[in-house]
Amino acid sequence: MQSDSSTLRLVRAGIDTYQQPVVYMHRDCPVCRSEGFTALSRVAIRSAGKELVATLNVVIDDHLDVDVAALSEMAWHALAPSEGAVAEIRHAEPPASTSALRAKVFGQRLSADAMRALVQDTVDARLSDIELAAFVTACAGDRLDHVETIALTRAMVDAGQRIAWFGEAIVDKHSVGGLPGNRTTPLVVAIAAAAGLCIPKTSSRAITSPAGTADTMEVMAPVDLDLRAMQRVVDREGGCVVWGGSVRLSPADDILIRVERPLDLDSEGQLVASVLSKKIAAGATHVLIDLPVGPTAKVRSNTNAYAIEQRFRATASAFGLHLRIARTDGTQPVGRGIGPSLEARDVLQVLRGDAVAPGDLRDRSLLLAGALLDLAPPPGCASGIVHARALLDSGAAYRKFVAICEAQGGFTEPCISQLVHSVRVQRSGIVRAIDNRRLARVAKLAGAPRARRAGVFLRLRVGDHVTAGDVLFDLHAESRGEMDYARSFVDAHPDIFDIA
Amino acid sequence: MQSDSSTLRLVRAGIDTYQQPVVYMHRDCPVCRSEGFTALSRVAIRSAGKELVATLNVVIDDHLDVDVAALSEMAWHALAPSEGAVAEIRHAEPPASTSALRAKVFGQRLSADAMRALVQDTVDARLSDIELAAFVTACAGDRLDHVETIALTRAMVDAGQRIAWFGEAIVDKHSVGGLPGNRTTPLVVAIAAAAGLCIPKTSSRAITSPAGTADTMEVMAPVDLDLRAMQRVVDREGGCVVWGGSVRLSPADDILIRVERPLDLDSEGQLVASVLSKKIAAGATHVLIDLPVGPTAKVRSNTNAYAIEQRFRATASAFGLHLRIARTDGTQPVGRGIGPSLEARDVLQVLRGDAVAPGDLRDRSLLLAGALLDLAPPPGCASGIVHARALLDSGAAYRKFVAICEAQGGFTEPCISQLVHSVRVQRSGIVRAIDNRRLARVAKLAGAPRARRAGVFLRLRVGDHVTAGDVLFDLHAESRGEMDYARSFVDAHPDIFDIA
Repeated sequence: MQSDSSTLRLVRAGIDTYQQPVVYMHRDCPVCRSEGFTALSRVAIRSAGKELVATLNVVIDDHLDVDVAALSEMAWHALAPSEGAVAEIRHAEPPASTSALRAKVFGQRLSADAMRALVQDTVDARLSDIELAAFVTACAGDRLDHVETIALTRAMVDAGQRIAWFGEAIVDKHSVGGLPGNRTTPLVVAIAAAAGLCIPKTSSRAITSPAGTADTMEVMAPVDLDLRAMQRVVDREGGCVVWGGSVRLSPADDILIRVERPLDLDSEGQLVASVLSKKIAAGATHVLIDLPVGPTAKVRSNTNAYAIEQRFRATASAFGLHLRIARTDGTQPVGRGIGPSLEARDVLQVLRGDAVAPGDLRDRSLLLAGALLDLAPPPGCASGIVHARALLDSGAAYRKFVAICEAQGGFTEPCISQLVHSVRVQRSGIVRAIDNRRLARVAKLAGAPRARRAGVFLRLRVGDHVTAGDVLFDLHAESRGEMDYARSFVDAHPDIFDIA
Repeated sequence: MQSDSSTLRLVRAGIDTYQQPVVYMHRDCPVCRSEGFTALSRVAIRSAGKELVATLNVVIDDHLDVDVAALSEMAWHALAPSEGAVAEIRHAEPPASTSALRAKVFGQRLSADAMRALVQDTVDARLSDIELAAFVTACAGDRLDHVETIALTRAMVDAGQRIAWFGEAIVDKHSVGGLPGNRTTPLVVAIAAAAGLCIPKTSSRAITSPAGTADTMEVMAPVDLDLRAMQRVVDREGGCVVWGGSVRLSPADDILIRVERPLDLDSEGQLVASVLSKKIAAGATHVLIDLPVGPTAKVRSNTNAYAIEQRFRATASAFGLHLRIARTDGTQPVGRGIGPSLEARDVLQVLRGDAVAPGDLRDRSLLLAGALLDLAPPPGCASGIVHARALLDSGAAYRKFVAICEAQGGFTEPCISQLVHSVRVQRSGIVRAIDNRRLARVAKLAGAPRARRAGVFLRLRVGDHVTAGDVLFDLHAESRGEMDYARSFVDAHPDIFDIA
């Protein structure tokens, strides 16, 4: 091959296409002309010993020179080219897992090797979004059996880092299908660590919600720790709550979730593989699963819950993982705040035994912490929930939480915005239901999670009696513009609360 | 809502993302900030009464102003904004067909209404690539039954234009899974029109192959006719061969094919709906299907062929369509040329009864034209193939072809490139197989279909005896650079011909 017709200089496009690597090349560049590339061609870009497969977008005006290939952010960071680096660009060979993907689409059972090939190509970004969507669709519902679920879990664990800890019991927890404001994690970590358990917790940031656990935690302490820093915190305090993004555990999971989310697919096998691969990679030995069940939760009925529990147990057992599942109420939000700072305030009120602390968040956290203590009982713990309540009420959990925050880089008291607007009830009655999806939207319009102090503070819960003029919820914002924007939305949607 | 925080000025990005509408907005633009948009958000763009759903790519450097939204080519043409137009940009509501898509993914049978909603959202570009991929995956193999196939066909027909013709019999033909060089269409049209049948044929351009029928035809006559011009040609000559792209027939099909192709999925139901929806929309009453069967063809065995034939018959019957299926040899290329001008030369040689005309292309065309004449016999036609041969041998088909070309805008004799390189056999033996995929790649590297005269001219066929030094094939190119590039590829892949 001639090198001159297949090489271009690499530049940064400055375009964020999320986890999709995209390369921009001019229609008249020598590579497009000689290789016959057109828009959406899958191309292999090789530079300085690294190779990446990207989707081509063709530039047809003179924004781009004909001798360069411009890389999207994901592609730029993956290849990390030096100044002026050139790349050889060719047609991408079909990924090695193509035949496995076709087999699954046509309903065949995948071997462990086939599953490994698919996961490796996923992590190496060799599968296009179309191929990833076909994969998750082919696994939807119950189209993965228990053996395939175990193979998928193992392949996902093996495709990333794995953390090893000293000590016999490493505990972890996961909530399936988060409810708005459901910030039990910092509380469970604080109680479990105060009880002497080792609980190295990684959490996610918000993607479509007004706050992820990592966003809420970040209001109180740094969360962007690398693996070594995380290990230091856990060695010192027995627990942590850090962002999982900088610790590369089960990286295939993040990629599959990106494709699953817009499809809103409930795939039992992928859900279980997703949750357990992260826990196993994080070195957990004892895992508690919080399974909220409710008509608008991820798990909609007890029948669904039973099937998922069986799948969790079979997979956990294959990895020698101790597992407990707690079915919880998934019908309405937990706590009063929605948005990072407001949720953080709820958490601290519970830890401090404040009289105004939200009772439902406290009860849920004690239930989960109690179940975790029963699963991996520390010395002298006869009843998990009794032990958990004692640690919370004595202030031991609060002191442990502050110590963890200090170890992560320093505790900060959350600030509450001064820009508050109260939304009032227009007629008397009983709150029959809350549209959680729209309420989350209001919090996002007000600026959450980017604006840490923005969000919604609920004054009422389902079942409460209200009188016209009562405050339903407070809007919090950091800027007048965002406050107005959220208020306009609330005015246009008076049905967020169903009052009869 | 405030208009200032949700409106941006529309500009053209000059980026071709094929049929995917993409909008580029700056990370710090007021809409991204207030709506909480991130990369890959699905956004609704409304301007001057038109609305489009696009995928967001976020620009993070200063290439783009914060007060504009830049549209990819597809989005720009769909909205066709006037100079300085502004657009209101919001979160896209989930498409109406979301629940139908989920139902199909979970293996349920779709009603006619559900199928219609999915096809309408496909045509309106309301489904993302991920959703389209899930749809085609959920229909893969035999997961659409006959009733669903009929509903899909009807929805696809109704979603586009439909042509009405005068006359009782409107004939058409389609080859499933084109073989390289398989240019029977211009020959079948010429013979059928010469026999007095009405055959308004629309064809496609190459997408991944070195030439589509429309590309080959364009070497000899204009093919980019709108519906009215096409109707004038057919009224005058009884037939045409035009590009289907400017006649909006079954537009959902083009979108689904774009997603199916990279997955290489054989979906019986979608194949049948794809072919027949185009024919029904084109007003056909009698349709001949050419079904090449061979290990590397789209239909690999007679068992597959039988299942597809049943599906074709059931669907055609639901629409009152007269259908005939001809199983043909799908084991090797048809004709000698691969590339627009070289294929056009093959076609003209057959029409002119040239002594060097490729016999296989002549035989295949007579077989298909004969079957079509048997399906819709013109007056005085007792045997289709006898009648077809008489029309070809008498020169009537040739005169009709030239007349059609003249009616389409003027006949042009194809030019053959002067830049030719002969590739020779390295050892004696028998040609056992030809790697059609690689041979097509060689033709594309040489410049086809963009360079009309570029391509491959085969000197040998499977089964031929060869002696070292014989010419296997000629490379044709329009530029020295492309010739060198194709030659390098041939040198690197001596196994394109299997000679033993």
